[in-house]
Amino acid sequence: MKLVHALGILAIGVVSLVIGILIGRFAIAPELPEWLRSMSHDGNPKYRYELQKEIQTHKIEQNLKYFSSKPHIAGSSQEEDVLANYIYTTWKSSLNGAKIYNYTVLLSYPNSTDPNYVAIVSSDGTESDISDKVEKILSPDQNDSTVVNPFNAYSPSGVIVGDPVYVNYGAVEDFHYLTRNLSMNLNGTVAIARYGKIFRGDKVKNGQTFGCAGMILYSDPADYVAGDLDRVFPHDWWLPGTGAQRGTVFNTDGDPLTPFYPAIESAFSLDEKDISNLPLIPVTPIGYNDAQKYLSKMAGIEAPSAWKGKLNLMYRVGPGFESPFEERKLKLYVKSYNVKKTIRNVIGFIEGKYEPDRYVVLGNHRDAWVFGAIDPSSGTAAMMELSRSMARMLEKGWRPRRSILFCSWGAEEYGLIGSTEWVEEMGKVLGPRTVAYLNVDLSLAGNSTLRALATPILHKLLFEAAKTVENPNPDEVKAGRKTVFDTWVANLPSSHDPTIPRVGDLGSGSDYSSFLQILGISSADVRYTYDQKYSLSSYPMYHSVYETMDLVSRIMDRGFKYHQAVARLWGEMALRLSDDVIVTLDCVQYATTMQRIVSDVEKTYGPLLQKKGITFDTVKEAANKFEAATHALQNRAENANKQNPLEVRKINDQLMLLERAFIDPLGVAGNLYYRHVIYAPNQHNLYAASSFPGLAAAMFDIEHDLNQELRWQQVQKEISILAYTINSAASTMQDHGKIGGGGVQR
Amino acid sequence: MKLVHALGILAIGVVSLVIGILIGRFAIAPELPEWLRSMSHDGNPKYRYELQKEIQTHKIEQNLKYFSSKPHIAGSSQEEDVLANYIYTTWKSSLNGAKIYNYTVLLSYPNSTDPNYVAIVSSDGTESDISDKVEKILSPDQNDSTVVNPFNAYSPSGVIVGDPVYVNYGAVEDFHYLTRNLSMNLNGTVAIARYGKIFRGDKVKNGQTFGCAGMILYSDPADYVAGDLDRVFPHDWWLPGTGAQRGTVFNTDGDPLTPFYPAIESAFSLDEKDISNLPLIPVTPIGYNDAQKYLSKMAGIEAPSAWKGKLNLMYRVGPGFESPFEERKLKLYVKSYNVKKTIRNVIGFIEGKYEPDRYVVLGNHRDAWVFGAIDPSSGTAAMMELSRSMARMLEKGWRPRRSILFCSWGAEEYGLIGSTEWVEEMGKVLGPRTVAYLNVDLSLAGNSTLRALATPILHKLLFEAAKTVENPNPDEVKAGRKTVFDTWVANLPSSHDPTIPRVGDLGSGSDYSSFLQILGISSADVRYTYDQKYSLSSYPMYHSVYETMDLVSRIMDRGFKYHQAVARLWGEMALRLSDDVIVTLDCVQYATTMQRIVSDVEKTYGPLLQKKGITFDTVKEAANKFEAATHALQNRAENANKQNPLEVRKINDQLMLLERAFIDPLGVAGNLYYRHVIYAPNQHNLYAASSFPGLAAAMFDIEHDLNQELRWQQVQKEISILAYTINSAASTMQDHGKIGGGGVQR
Repeated sequence: MKLVHALGILAIGVVSLVIGILIGRFAIAPELPEWLRSMSHDGNPKYRYELQKEIQTHKIEQNLKYFSSKPHIAGSSQEEDVLANYIYTTWKSSLNGAKIYNYTVLLSYPNSTDPNYVAIVSSDGTESDISDKVEKILSPDQNDSTVVNPFNAYSPSGVIVGDPVYVNYGAVEDFHYLTRNLSMNLNGTVAIARYGKIFRGDKVKNGQTFGCAGMILYSDPADYVAGDLDRVFPHDWWLPGTGAQRGTVFNTDGDPLTPFYPAIESAFSLDEKDISNLPLIPVTPIGYNDAQKYLSKMAGIEAPSAWKGKLNLMYRVGPGFESPFEERKLKLYVKSYNVKKTIRNVIGFIEGKYEPDRYVVLGNHRDAWVFGAIDPSSGTAAMMELSRSMARMLEKGWRPRRSILFCSWGAEEYGLIGSTEWVEEMGKVLGPRTVAYLNVDLSLAGNSTLRALATPILHKLLFEAAKTVENPNPDEVKAGRKTVFDTWVANLPSSHDPTIPRVGDLGSGSDYSSFLQILGISSADVRYTYDQKYSLSSYPMYHSVYETMDLVSRIMDRGFKYHQAVARLWGEMALRLSDDVIVTLDCVQYATTMQRIVSDVEKTYGPLLQKKGITFDTVKEAANKFEAATHALQNRAENANKQNPLEVRKINDQLMLLERAFIDPLGVAGNLYYRHVIYAPNQHNLYAASSFPGLAAAMFDIEHDLNQELRWQQVQKEISILAYTINSAASTMQDHGKIGGGGVQR
Repeated sequence: MKLVHALGILAIGVVSLVIGILIGRFAIAPELPEWLRSMSHDGNPKYRYELQKEIQTHKIEQNLKYFSSKPHIAGSSQEEDVLANYIYTTWKSSLNGAKIYNYTVLLSYPNSTDPNYVAIVSSDGTESDISDKVEKILSPDQNDSTVVNPFNAYSPSGVIVGDPVYVNYGAVEDFHYLTRNLSMNLNGTVAIARYGKIFRGDKVKNGQTFGCAGMILYSDPADYVAGDLDRVFPHDWWLPGTGAQRGTVFNTDGDPLTPFYPAIESAFSLDEKDISNLPLIPVTPIGYNDAQKYLSKMAGIEAPSAWKGKLNLMYRVGPGFESPFEERKLKLYVKSYNVKKTIRNVIGFIEGKYEPDRYVVLGNHRDAWVFGAIDPSSGTAAMMELSRSMARMLEKGWRPRRSILFCSWGAEEYGLIGSTEWVEEMGKVLGPRTVAYLNVDLSLAGNSTLRALATPILHKLLFEAAKTVENPNPDEVKAGRKTVFDTWVANLPSSHDPTIPRVGDLGSGSDYSSFLQILGISSADVRYTYDQKYSLSSYPMYHSVYETMDLVSRIMDRGFKYHQAVARLWGEMALRLSDDVIVTLDCVQYATTMQRIVSDVEKTYGPLLQKKGITFDTVKEAANKFEAATHALQNRAENANKQNPLEVRKINDQLMLLERAFIDPLGVAGNLYYRHVIYAPNQHNLYAASSFPGLAAAMFDIEHDLNQELRWQQVQKEISILAYTINSAASTMQDHGKIGGGGVQR
């Protein structure tokens, strides 16, 4: 019995042990190791919430005060030493690391002792109505010995004397009106163009093409003063008549001396004479007080009503001055010069925990024409606060799944130089690894509503992020619009769907350009902006000496809530892109937009194409195939096994690389600066985007081309490139190892 | 007591249970789930062993018999219907799937009722010494009504009468000898060039450049008969005097009508007159029996000894015929025509188990000039047996980690058309996903030793694979050389290290060209070849009607052991690339080779550069940086945590994409067909590779250029592109999330 008893006890022990082992092995043991489990979960939303909470208005205010305290034009010591070093030191000590990238590039400055000006000159050489050589100081913080007076970068120096002609905005259509409708000969004239609508470099290019010998750019109150002309700054934020808009007139991106290659030490530099796309005629900007003096004396017929600005005068097209000034000419005196300078990008990074080789890239430029309290330092102030807040989160234990890069660009104002040189240098690293590029050029151009530009694949993320950000406007909150999204959709509803906001297309207006146009990286640019009812051409003080801390803190963003909202939105987007297991890139929206473009293009060009016997069907078929492929990919993304890191990666790569498929290495219509076949800068306005830009360029003004056969061949070629590219993009979305697209199953 | 007792038993039970749970949870439970564990192991070597065993000589023999039974020139029904369908059906039923890709492209054929010929013509138009219009049939299997007579594809049609000039191999140096040393004026002459040394298209281009009105290409016995002239085929494998080498004289890759874009249905097709790189002068090939008639009658001085072939005559350079034929001319009669035809690629695929979106691509072309028993069907026979063997392995349960693609290309002979169009169509899919491209154009050009061309990153894999393949030559085995590697290293030792074989660089001789030159995909090409002591220009029967099953089975590979060895090597490489956790891509070898190129280039150009004050130091520094980066990456690859799929993927991507970093989308020296900055086809010989090709092109014959300043600027630009590109490639190898390269740490 004892034995039986002992055996019984033993049996109990053994059975319990076995049961225990079985429980331990199969019921309790985790199916996945901890690292793999945590790799298969989206980032904890609490981190996004905490990040938003961390972003503080008074810190942003401090940042802005610091960054806009002195002029910091590209190439200056304040910009390349003081500010660049400050950012470098900050990031180096708070993030996982930082680097500075130097490029020696061609910049341009006015001659400080022999300033540019405009005057009326009589036949004996006497000058009158001389334009202001400096902008009048209107608040104490504009007073600084390093202010660089109004000029247009890269204008050649020269003294031009000629008949004035008023060319409205200087668009191709404006010049066509003068030369075709009015049969005017513009050779040797000095064009007076008003700022707005299109990129100023295109105005100059057009003036040059149509024979003008020089150009004067001025800001008409119609485009920069929506309020009363006697309530301008310092009373309100409207541009005073003494303000002039600086700006580059270089028509492409990057260092003019090293096209397509980075301006690193070993770079081959062109002779200046071999640079293309630099302006060939002198050009200078003036304020509307000065413009009034010239425009009010002009001869010629009355300008069409669409050409009339808000100055108190009769707008006439010229050429020349009216009696009794008919013998006088307009004189343009430009003594700017080009010079090589070293500019700097600062890059800070946070290393991703699981996918360090996937980058979410955030960028803002640092250089300003003068104090730059709006452009770009309002963006810089937000970026520095966002990076500080992320650093704080790192201390609390957060680590992003993917890497996050902060970029402070140099020399954006001269032609997106810092970002372009970096993209040229690092393209082979960035191309295969970058999830998206999120740009904030400036935090706010106004305080009415959010405004976003983005490729379609980022729209959804923009909307979702905007819904999480508290509305910075208490009146809007009171009216029930609690989030940034609510005001946005109310102010700027999409014309296709009023439940979502309108998102603009990306031209070449800021540092996203090379990311999108050279590498095909999905990009977005966000800011707060002014009420669209004003129909301004930009925020009024744009590129003037009046863009100071005083303007921002006293008028544009008292309390810095709008800056904060932009920083929060930016951070929310960054964390979603870095921490979601499946990246929030919405390929279906790309298809929706593509179908809309196809149908718009068909409406616009369809009849003309049909008349020529050219079919657009191949593009339509490709768009349908593309659409089907996006639905299939989205479906796979939604049903992915998140515990399989390679399945996740495969789908993410397809989403991330989709935009790359739109890049044609041969450039759009042969222009190697712009390679995105679906969206590229408009060939006549670098600021704006053109959909199906190759086709648009081929069709533009086609009826006036002397070589009709060649032009229509070009149209056919562009249609074929579109069909091929869209089909190719569809192929990249096909499932798994089955080599996608193209082939015939039979 | 009872209670105590019961409690005791309970305690034993509980303790045992707890111990059991602990054991089950921590000691026994697998640390990783099964799928993850198996994902972290290299493929089982037994599968590679079994694959090699599965590959059978008699199956290869059957394949070759089938594929070479009839002529199958590109565009013919035998080629595009019968053979393409056979492959498609085979793969469709045995692999995971197959697809056919159609392209409608420009091909070229001789006129079958008005054949091309050469003759001597007297002043009254009487023709004598007319060349053979067909090749004489020497064995029954050459007899087929669909044989296409000797011609050079894309030669314009035309009748040329002119003085003959002997131009040796037709290389630039040969023409320089005639025009510079002998001050000969070649305008209007008919050049007689011998085949060999350089690509025939370059011969024609040179003839054209130097003013010749037409060209005749013949095969001199010096280059195609190493044995006795009366022991040629059918006695031995040497070219008989009645054989002529067909071949394209188109100087770039892909369909001439659709440069850089795929010739799909929606493609824009050039007018023929707008095609560049098509030959402008008529050209035709002849055998050496015919050449003898013309060369033996030539006037002029004796050719330099290096120009003399093995025909029994005095080689003279011309111009013209010698007495009594001095009034006679050489007549070239070409009636070929260009025509659009649909060609086909067949793609079969095996889907990868863990990384289906990573492709190991194997390819061989299918089209032949005539029967193609060597070129390409010896390769096709091997590929079909390899794919059959892999299908067998699939049945046995093997699944590759990554996907494997088999490609049967159309219209390679005309200018790598099928592969190029496919790369153009599928580039956006292939670029980010392809691990390597492994080409076998033909299995054997002889049976002496292996010969391989590859980018440096694949050398190591080639060597390792060759060591696993049994030596097909029993005499070699007897001599102690048991593997393919042993014979290879004995016959073709590297000049730098006798313990490894020499691996050649990739020119543009076969279908790897677009993979490497457009996409930057690491590539290799292998075959068995003849003894190098023969110094042949290719295997003797190359592109003649005599390339039949009889030649191969009776003379070149009795028993098909050499075919088998090539198929085994190919399979071994494919399985290593598809199944190893960390891909066997040897970045360090790239650095070693790069350093060698740098030092060679410095030796060659250094003194001249120094005299011009141009430094090569930037390239040297870049090469050093590149070398350091390869060691660091290799180190990380060796120490990678194979259980972390994302770490593995990260390193593999760096290895896989390294070659991509050498692609300049702007092309090498502006030539968009060739974009690989380190290796591209030699600008004067498409077959050969040039190292640092942009620099080589800039330096070539520089002393004779009239615009010295421009040329030396080009040299500086090329050096700057090299420095930039190599630095950029180094950046891609840097560790993890830290954005690599370029930046200054300070």
